[in-house]
Amino acid sequence: MVTGSYEGRQSHIPELKTPAIEVFENIYSRADYEIHFEIPEFTAICPKTGLPDFGTIYIDYIPDQWCLELKSLKEYFFFFRDIGIFHENVVNKVTEDLIACASPRFLKVRGDYNIRGGVKTVVEREYRRK
Amino acid sequence: MVTGSYEGRQSHIPELKTPAIEVFENIYSRADYEIHFEIPEFTAICPKTGLPDFGTIYIDYIPDQWCLELKSLKEYFFFFRDIGIFHENVVNKVTEDLIACASPRFLKVRGDYNIRGGVKTVVEREYRRK
Amino acid sequence: MVTGSYEGRQSHIPELKTPAIEVFENIYSRADYEIHFEIPEFTAICPKTGLPDFGTIYIDYIPDQWCLELKSLKEYFFFFRDIGIFHENVVNKVTEDLIACASPRFLKVRGDYNIRGGVKTVVEREYRRK
Amino acid sequence: MVTGSYEGRQSHIPELKTPAIEVFENIYSRADYEIHFEIPEFTAICPKTGLPDFGTIYIDYIPDQWCLELKSLKEYFFFFRDIGIFHENVVNKVTEDLIACASPRFLKVRGDYNIRGGVKTVVEREYRRK
Amino acid sequence: MVTGSYEGRQSHIPELKTPAIEVFENIYSRADYEIHFEIPEFTAICPKTGLPDFGTIYIDYIPDQWCLELKSLKEYFFFFRDIGIFHENVVNKVTEDLIACASPRFLKVRGDYNIRGGVKTVVEREYRRK
Amino acid sequence: MVTGSYEGRQSHIPELKTPAIEVFENIYSRADYEIHFEIPEFTAICPKTGLPDFGTIYIDYIPDQWCLELKSLKEYFFFFRDIGIFHENVVNKVTEDLIACASPRFLKVRGDYNIRGGVKTVVEREYRRK
Amino acid sequence: MVTGSYEGRQSHIPELKTPAIEVFENIYSRADYEIHFEIPEFTAICPKTGLPDFGTIYIDYIPDQWCLELKSLKEYFFFFRDIGIFHENVVNKVTEDLIACASPRFLKVRGDYNIRGGVKTVVEREYRRK
Amino acid sequence: MVTGSYEGRQSHIPELKTPAIEVFENIYSRADYEIHFEIPEFTAICPKTGLPDFGTIYIDYIPDQWCLELKSLKEYFFFFRDIGIFHENVVNKVTEDLIACASPRFLKVRGDYNIRGGVKTVVEREYRRK
Amino acid sequence: MVTGSYEGRQSHIPELKTPAIEVFENIYSRADYEIHFEIPEFTAICPKTGLPDFGTIYIDYIPDQWCLELKSLKEYFFFFRDIGIFHENVVNKVTEDLIACASPRFLKVRGDYNIRGGVKTVVEREYRRK
Amino acid sequence: MVTGSYEGRQSHIPELKTPAIEVFENIYSRADYEIHFEIPEFTAICPKTGLPDFGTIYIDYIPDQWCLELKSLKEYFFFFRDIGIFHENVVNKVTEDLIACASPRFLKVRGDYNIRGGVKTVVEREYRRK
Repeated sequence: MVTGSYEGRQSHIPELKTPAIEVFENIYSRADYEIHFEIPEFTAICPKTGLPDFGTIYIDYIPDQWCLELKSLKEYFFFFRDIGIFHENVVNKVTEDLIACASPRFLKVRGDYNIRGGVKTVVEREYRRK
Repeated sequence: MVTGSYEGRQSHIPELKTPAIEVFENIYSRADYEIHFEIPEFTAICPKTGLPDFGTIYIDYIPDQWCLELKSLKEYFFFFRDIGIFHENVVNKVTEDLIACASPRFLKVRGDYNIRGGVKTVVEREYRRK
Repeated sequence: MVTGSYEGRQSHIPELKTPAIEVFENIYSRADYEIHFEIPEFTAICPKTGLPDFGTIYIDYIPDQWCLELKSLKEYFFFFRDIGIFHENVVNKVTEDLIACASPRFLKVRGDYNIRGGVKTVVEREYRRK
Repeated sequence: MVTGSYEGRQSHIPELKTPAIEVFENIYSRADYEIHFEIPEFTAICPKTGLPDFGTIYIDYIPDQWCLELKSLKEYFFFFRDIGIFHENVVNKVTEDLIACASPRFLKVRGDYNIRGGVKTVVEREYRRK
Repeated sequence: MVTGSYEGRQSHIPELKTPAIEVFENIYSRADYEIHFEIPEFTAICPKTGLPDFGTIYIDYIPDQWCLELKSLKEYFFFFRDIGIFHENVVNKVTEDLIACASPRFLKVRGDYNIRGGVKTVVEREYRRK
Repeated sequence: MVTGSYEGRQSHIPELKTPAIEVFENIYSRADYEIHFEIPEFTAICPKTGLPDFGTIYIDYIPDQWCLELKSLKEYFFFFRDIGIFHENVVNKVTEDLIACASPRFLKVRGDYNIRGGVKTVVEREYRRK
Repeated sequence: MVTGSYEGRQSHIPELKTPAIEVFENIYSRADYEIHFEIPEFTAICPKTGLPDFGTIYIDYIPDQWCLELKSLKEYFFFFRDIGIFHENVVNKVTEDLIACASPRFLKVRGDYNIRGGVKTVVEREYRRK
Repeated sequence: MVTGSYEGRQSHIPELKTPAIEVFENIYSRADYEIHFEIPEFTAICPKTGLPDFGTIYIDYIPDQWCLELKSLKEYFFFFRDIGIFHENVVNKVTEDLIACASPRFLKVRGDYNIRGGVKTVVEREYRRK
Repeated sequence: MVTGSYEGRQSHIPELKTPAIEVFENIYSRADYEIHFEIPEFTAICPKTGLPDFGTIYIDYIPDQWCLELKSLKEYFFFFRDIGIFHENVVNKVTEDLIACASPRFLKVRGDYNIRGGVKTVVEREYRRK
Repeated sequence: MVTGSYEGRQSHIPELKTPAIEVFENIYSRADYEIHFEIPEFTAICPKTGLPDFGTIYIDYIPDQWCLELKSLKEYFFFFRDIGIFHENVVNKVTEDLIACASPRFLKVRGDYNIRGGVKTVVEREYRRK
């Protein structure tokens, strides 16, 4: 049984325009190496209850030509503070935005959310360039 | 040596009718990604002693067309509060109910129970769609 | 250099008669799933010093037709309270007794003993049915 | 979008002259074995803000003919105390300097930096001699 | 650049005579199983500074015909209390001594040393009988 | 501003009849000594939402003539499984029931509840006989 | 040396109108007992940088005639999500608002904020009715 | 309500003859100083169920003329391995035996028992010589 | 026996000119409340060896008319990065500088330094205005 | 019952000559402040078994005119590596040696020893100058 209204409220998410993330040149691009970020103060709005959600976003990536610039990445995440978005969609949206701006060789995004209604949720997506 | 009465008391479990779990459309179904839930306040009744059992249920799944809706999932687990059921059967029952309602690409269910009579029990089942 | 007396004192262990462990029918035997037990209050006697040894026994198994009944398993372990037996032999003895009574598809037994004479000992054996 | 000045400020890093790291003969070079170092008091300067960065450097390597001498390794890391260098470049620079001085069979360098502006960064590079 | 004196001071280590380690018969040698020891109070002398070093030695092995007897193993490690020996050489020396006395099917020796001069060192060697 | 209905729904709690707790004679009553219990599997019903609450109850007491019998204490706490009662009232009710049955010299009762709606609650009451 | 603008931007805080917190009757007011709340998802805006601050608010109080109602307390804290307010002022403002609405016998409010610019801040104020 | 049989089964405990604990002369008796022992492998028999109980005994004392000799203290505690005795009585019995043999200036005995039937128990008694 | 050179190298510390710490008006000065800061990335130079020292500085204070401004406090601590100063003197110097600039009602300064030469050092000074 | 030989073997400890501990002038002696040292690698010989003992020594003191110099303190503790001495006597000996060399206003010495024969021992002595 499907709750149609969910889908309706969130179907615009893949196209939602988010702030640009700056990149800088990877001067060691001849080698594969992994960069890991933890953003422990992520907050967005639950589209169902209107109440704030909190969590930590983890990013692992192997850069190709471009590295993610940290300050603009932070501003990118601040954008979600007033956005109504499900846990599952945050991780998918971030994954696709990071691929679009930095074309990494590998990327993994994990959203680890605080307990809500007695349930803890973690969502993780992994991407490997072919 | 088999204790026949056990089997007798639990053979109805696979067919036991449980509350429906709602699902919503997975708008990112073109990619594989993993969703993890922790339900730390699971309680049921030990069919042998009539005393309450306590534990945490962990669910990991890769959604296909449908995602599990959290609020109905919680209500699904509340249902067990007054049910006499062995640890092993909870995990198997939940696994088969979740497959039936959401047809995930991958599913793992783990029940991590509190110590009873000086013994701690964990049961885990994994399913991968062919 | 071999200390012959050790072997002598312990060569009867494989044939030592231990209390029967009850089993009950696995009503989900069509699937592979794993059951994990922790028995944190294991104690036996060191055959060399006569002093008590303490430790935790961990059991992981994939049941076939039979599941291990918890209460008789506990009584099985109480039996060792007055038995003089080396750490290595406890794990091997338990492994072979559990295979004999439940014919599992997979079994791992680990004995994690408290520090003795400034040394901590862990023994682990794994069995997979062919 | 690329911030050109970043690249400019850091393009000299691969050629930056660092203190020599002494090595000593590996008298067990006939076998592969792994050596792991943790240097928990690494500090350098952020080239963007001029403020100090802090972190822990982890090194894992399998020596070939030469082992890294610890005291000169420490002095090598002290050198960075006044150097403006990005997290990503520290790990790459160290990796290439260690390969040049000790020709290990395997090497992994990880920089685990303290949180900055609400974000934690870890960078890791692995090298395996062909 | 090599510090010749190091090599000189340590080249006798492979031949250094150490106390014998007793073994006893493995009455379950028909199966592979793993034995793990932790010796948390290892101490030796740093050959460079003459100051004591401290650490924990971890041993994992799969016995063949013989098991290591714990008391003589402890005395074997006490022997190093007054020996000047580098971290790397302790692990290699112990590995080769244990192979010589017990011919295990598998052996892993790890030395996890306390921080010295702001650096922590771990050395690990693994052996598998062909 | 007061929500009258709360008070209404809970004003019967002080007089609510609970299962008797057995006591046994304190054969060391000539001395003061403290007994501490932890009951980690407490569950009751939230009178506002009808959903289950979970928590741990801690009891510290100095017995006078009578000690609390553990098995009947457990049954006393099982009684709350289906009772609608606020966190604050559980602790006060338990305190007064224990004073009534065992007349301790000192008593402290603490209820440490799981997070609900993003808030964790702990309630504690202390009693000292004059 | 005083930065006058700080004071200017925050001098309105004591009079800032916040959402009402509901209370309910304390049916055990004849005894002193302590209630402790943890609100781990507090967020406000730094008035200096405009960036979000995160932290946990701890409340301990001994109720007199009124207890704090949890749901309205949560809404009270949500109010700060868009307010520019210093760490020190949050704790003082909350303290005085809670005294005004519930007249407790004792109250302690603590704000434990996440690290900012490499510094962690905790602010605590205690009140005892005379 | 009193369960008479408890009292009956345990009233002999205060007079139960236990192994002697040796003492040695305190050569620093002119000063007060505190000695703390932890005996983590205490086991006795539950007089009600006949099943083994496990726990840790903590002893703090300020010696006067005599110090407790460790080896005989251990043998003293081994004595309880086959004794049916309640948690409360172990602590009281040990306290009075230690006062009798060493006449300390101060003594505290704590028994911290493993969870039984979902309840953890700690018992503590303190003595100060007048 | 005194090492005169120590004293000589450090006797200028009490008069060493450090960067000014800004303060801002405490708008809640009518009440006592406590502010706690942790500065986990403190580093200075050991005056004896010339090597860097690392540690965490903890500050607790009750403000009177002025609160310490965080950004200038951080800059104050950066100043020590190139200063040769003993652990004991850092804590005393900071204490007296903070009293001079903010006249707090209470102040406690603790320096918790990383292990050096196998020894960990913590220094703490407390001040209470009369 | 006293084991005379103990006393005999240890009665020379109070007069045992230990290496001198250097002190340096306390330039902040006008204030009381506390210095804390942890020496985690203490080892001595058990006079009864001849086997090595290991532990951590903790020192807290308020200096008067003199501070303890760290390097000579370390050498002082190395001295015990080959000394047969009971746990209780180490703490008392160290206390009296430190009072003799630095005349502190306050001193606390704690020896926290590793488990031996299944028992952990901690000894602590406190001194306050009158």
